[in-house]
Amino acid sequence: MTSSATTLKGQPLDKAVLESILKRRLFYTPSFEIYGGVGGLYDYGPPGCSLQANIVDTWRKHFILEEDMLEVDTTALTPHDVLKTSGHVDKFADWMCKDPKNGDILRADHFVEAILEARLNGDKEARGVKVEEKEEDPKKKKKKKAKTEAVKLDDAVVQEYEEVLARIDNYGGPELGELIKKYDLKNPATGVRPSDPVSFNLMFQTSIGPSSNYPGYLRPETAQGQFLNFAKLLEFNQSQMPFASACIGKSYRNEISPRAGLLRVREFLMAEIEHFVDPEGGKKHTRFHEVEDLELVLLDRDTQLAGKTETKKIKIGEAVKTRLVDNETLGYFLARIHLFMRRIGVDESKMRFRQHMANEMAHYATDCWDCELFTTSGWIECVGCADRSAYDLTVHANKTGAPLVVRERREEPLVIEEWQIDIEKKKFGPLFKKDAKTVESALLATSQEQREQLAKELETGNISLDVAGVGDGKVQIGKDAIAIEFRKRVENTREYTPNVIEPSFGIGRILYSLMEHCFWTRGTEGGDEARGVLSFPPTVAPTKVLLVPLSSNDKFRPALKKLSQRLRTAGVSSRVDDSSASIGKRYSRNDELGTPLGITIDFQTVQDGTITLRDRDSTTQVRADEDKIIEAIKSLVDGSKTWADIEAELPKFEGQEVEVVSR
Amino acid sequence: MTSSATTLKGQPLDKAVLESILKRRLFYTPSFEIYGGVGGLYDYGPPGCSLQANIVDTWRKHFILEEDMLEVDTTALTPHDVLKTSGHVDKFADWMCKDPKNGDILRADHFVEAILEARLNGDKEARGVKVEEKEEDPKKKKKKKAKTEAVKLDDAVVQEYEEVLARIDNYGGPELGELIKKYDLKNPATGVRPSDPVSFNLMFQTSIGPSSNYPGYLRPETAQGQFLNFAKLLEFNQSQMPFASACIGKSYRNEISPRAGLLRVREFLMAEIEHFVDPEGGKKHTRFHEVEDLELVLLDRDTQLAGKTETKKIKIGEAVKTRLVDNETLGYFLARIHLFMRRIGVDESKMRFRQHMANEMAHYATDCWDCELFTTSGWIECVGCADRSAYDLTVHANKTGAPLVVRERREEPLVIEEWQIDIEKKKFGPLFKKDAKTVESALLATSQEQREQLAKELETGNISLDVAGVGDGKVQIGKDAIAIEFRKRVENTREYTPNVIEPSFGIGRILYSLMEHCFWTRGTEGGDEARGVLSFPPTVAPTKVLLVPLSSNDKFRPALKKLSQRLRTAGVSSRVDDSSASIGKRYSRNDELGTPLGITIDFQTVQDGTITLRDRDSTTQVRADEDKIIEAIKSLVDGSKTWADIEAELPKFEGQEVEVVSR
Repeated sequence: MTSSATTLKGQPLDKAVLESILKRRLFYTPSFEIYGGVGGLYDYGPPGCSLQANIVDTWRKHFILEEDMLEVDTTALTPHDVLKTSGHVDKFADWMCKDPKNGDILRADHFVEAILEARLNGDKEARGVKVEEKEEDPKKKKKKKAKTEAVKLDDAVVQEYEEVLARIDNYGGPELGELIKKYDLKNPATGVRPSDPVSFNLMFQTSIGPSSNYPGYLRPETAQGQFLNFAKLLEFNQSQMPFASACIGKSYRNEISPRAGLLRVREFLMAEIEHFVDPEGGKKHTRFHEVEDLELVLLDRDTQLAGKTETKKIKIGEAVKTRLVDNETLGYFLARIHLFMRRIGVDESKMRFRQHMANEMAHYATDCWDCELFTTSGWIECVGCADRSAYDLTVHANKTGAPLVVRERREEPLVIEEWQIDIEKKKFGPLFKKDAKTVESALLATSQEQREQLAKELETGNISLDVAGVGDGKVQIGKDAIAIEFRKRVENTREYTPNVIEPSFGIGRILYSLMEHCFWTRGTEGGDEARGVLSFPPTVAPTKVLLVPLSSNDKFRPALKKLSQRLRTAGVSSRVDDSSASIGKRYSRNDELGTPLGITIDFQTVQDGTITLRDRDSTTQVRADEDKIIEAIKSLVDGSKTWADIEAELPKFEGQEVEVVSR
Repeated sequence: MTSSATTLKGQPLDKAVLESILKRRLFYTPSFEIYGGVGGLYDYGPPGCSLQANIVDTWRKHFILEEDMLEVDTTALTPHDVLKTSGHVDKFADWMCKDPKNGDILRADHFVEAILEARLNGDKEARGVKVEEKEEDPKKKKKKKAKTEAVKLDDAVVQEYEEVLARIDNYGGPELGELIKKYDLKNPATGVRPSDPVSFNLMFQTSIGPSSNYPGYLRPETAQGQFLNFAKLLEFNQSQMPFASACIGKSYRNEISPRAGLLRVREFLMAEIEHFVDPEGGKKHTRFHEVEDLELVLLDRDTQLAGKTETKKIKIGEAVKTRLVDNETLGYFLARIHLFMRRIGVDESKMRFRQHMANEMAHYATDCWDCELFTTSGWIECVGCADRSAYDLTVHANKTGAPLVVRERREEPLVIEEWQIDIEKKKFGPLFKKDAKTVESALLATSQEQREQLAKELETGNISLDVAGVGDGKVQIGKDAIAIEFRKRVENTREYTPNVIEPSFGIGRILYSLMEHCFWTRGTEGGDEARGVLSFPPTVAPTKVLLVPLSSNDKFRPALKKLSQRLRTAGVSSRVDDSSASIGKRYSRNDELGTPLGITIDFQTVQDGTITLRDRDSTTQVRADEDKIIEAIKSLVDGSKTWADIEAELPKFEGQEVEVVSR
């Protein structure tokens, strides 16, 4: 977060300018705005909706189709028991503080972060360094916010604050509370120190059915629905391992104080993969060799714990070899995420993979790397790639008794020599009556070492076993009720609970970051105001082609209609602008919508059937007959050719561009 | 509901057989099944998910792209105020009864329907007529249900019951309560008459934000999110009318006792169009001529109110001309719905459009036609096409003050002569002080006739005006505070609130009905058990092509890999089955998944590169080189050619089919 955000062309990026374009062109808009709006809820208008659909479509091709994943569509409504078992009812929470004076509710980590950053900014100002303020939701700006006051700090204090900030995601509630006291952090709105942080569960609660005694939640992730279907999916996959399921759908988190626009919302589209893998054999991946030479930018756990943010650029093959990244499957997905981001147009120089610190990880994860994208709001987590180990399948199996396991025939039968306990039910049952089950469980829970010892004791008389809750906590068992023997056992089947590698994508965050990465402003030669351009790759651009007749002359209508129809048949979305504005103005309006290609229909079209095709980014044009232009468009949209390829193939056209520039 | 459901080939359709295939092949499955399941919640597995995605994709092309609709993606979470204004908080409810003995909660209309149908079935049995029982969720069958007892009824009673059933959707709670008393209807589980029906709101409630004082609901329809964005969408559309918005997303209804599988669920995918139209000029549609000759099967309101269910087949142009269907725009959408259903493979002989009866309509509708599909559960509402008039835009504008209107420049200025009231603020204000606003409103609310009368009174002294809540309910106003004059006013702008025609699709119900319509069983010549086939059109089929190597011989692998890759590039989903089962068995497994095409790779492929293409429905095959086969597949999948076309173009192949049949 040391540098500040730039446009695609390296210009300083003014978030307010971009946001005003995005809202004006209805990429997105606050939901329920005529009712005053609700924090953290946004609607997508036509271009945003189309951009989102294209990103999702690319995701589906890149992940699901490419690797034959099993896509499922599960419900967002989830009964309480499922999320109790998964740990979300108890642990899916943020820490919040309350201002005792005005009742403001603050998210504790964000509060600490904001005040310390403000103090550091004040220090920089006092030292004469130019300060860039991070942008916030303009609505919230009306509230008094942590303002930069020019106060110089001790060098040691500066270093301490910076280290705290680098570790901010690693603190729990009590630690955040201590920081608030230690640094005497006050709510700028009141000048009062907020209360100690308390835990606030982030799930939306509701009640299912008419009787109101069946509580449920809106899912906070799509993952649980996939885990619960594990056994059916494994069967559907003809019991072949490894395999992955995937789900694209809305999830919900009741954020304490959402503000950063699309980056922190309460309802959001997720695309999640659960890749089920054998925990033995080092979690290899058969296609890892395809990506091993790809270089990723990594920020590891140790660096962060040292209070630093330096990244290293390293081949993923090397990172796995040195165990910086734990295993091939995790590494494979990090690389595939990188390739996906590149494919949709993310700026690779603004992408890094950050490893979670121990306290930061979700309760189910054993390791986690976030794909972060750099924006005007700093580094934003857009994809989490977690190793959930066998956590979820194990807890659900334990709770329900469902066998969420893989059973495989062993190539070589496994021969085990071990101490086994036989129970003589006829004697054992009457001996312990209602406690028989409990005593049996205690017996079977004994270790091999204990059994060897017990076997010896049994030879000479009764054994004595600790069984909590039965009698005085000790029971006596004799030879007539049990036997303990050292025997061979042959296992032909191996049974194991798969581990899960989970790449989890926040589509809205990716979409917003992509809009920042693709944005730039074009100056005009005549000294006009700079004009915004969104240089989406054709694959994800909301509309692919703008159709522009030279004027509203009726002569152009038939060609226009025919072209629209042909593009529709080719599956290419187009839009006609036959308004009376100049051609230059019409193109420039569509630059803001990110439309990559433009076709002009002019008098020559009527004469010889040729049309011109314009490239948004370079504004250069080619001219050819309709068939060739449509072929060119198809290959640009499916990504098989670049504009440079098309320029090399088709005759350049210079006519209209003069007109475009001159207006 | 007089006839019973059949398969695509006219065989009697056994719902239990079909459902067992659909669940076994993971088209869908009860959500949270390992936790015992939750009524009305289902997950889609890979084939169901893909079928759903293809139906939605076809819908998007058929409606949104074809007519340049403005697609939006709005939130499901909706604040209380919005749904209070829309009327859903007060009126979006079903009537439920409680069994006082065992606490069973029953949906009143379904309860009356079930018992009367059971009595009619008992009557038929007593008269010696064969009775087909309607299928229900097998789980619920365990409960004691309304059983058919062979009791003969009076002819008059039979007729009365049948008339009640034809009108069942027309009854409100009190009327249902009277029917329960009149016919002494008892809960079969207890033999006790349930309580009087009470209203139960069907929305899931939750709380937004950390302070728990901001109630919200999960939307019961996507429509409200579209209405609230009306002004922005109109501007996005460059103020052009008419236009339509569309939204595809999940909606939620807390059904009282969901049971009919996918037909009545609590979380479901909707695709809704809000077409905004000028209420003046008869709601014409510029493309109506394209569909006017299409014949639809209609069941109108009057027929149902007479207790009948006869339909008429009529051209939509004729239906609009005779005002059977109110206007062109409504008629246009009914026709477009029909064409959509045909395109995805719905059996047209099992489709009708039923008009709502007055009491049956939602609180916002002035007219409504349902597109119903016939299934083993009778006629099922799959699409509602309602005229919501200006209801929603008006109530939201009144509540929020937002101008949800269209402003158009009049071609001819409108000159209005009318009585106008001028208020002399300086006198008027001090006269009424805090009541000034109220009195002013009362004055401005007067009619033209009243004003004419008041003007006369004012000439001779003070006027006396009724103003509730001010003084004794009457106020006196004199010439110094107001003037009332007859004057001309010129309006250059016309302002109106658009009407809304709303086609609203329940994707899950369409998907399930489609599965019934496409299902049939194939007998084998050897007398094997009948095998299920789902004859989805290639456009919507979950997987388009099955790739089958003759055996697991390594020789076939390169051709298989190359073909998979080529199909993927062509955007055609395929699946390899290289298991050791016979080719016939492998094809038959994929008949159940509805895969329309199969490619066999055999020794000849290795020699000369030719492959065979098999049609699921006829099981006939053609053989040609890879390029030709891939071209054929593309044209079958995009719907531009039929199998008959392909058979006419490419050489027939008879070799393997012998092998298929012989196994």
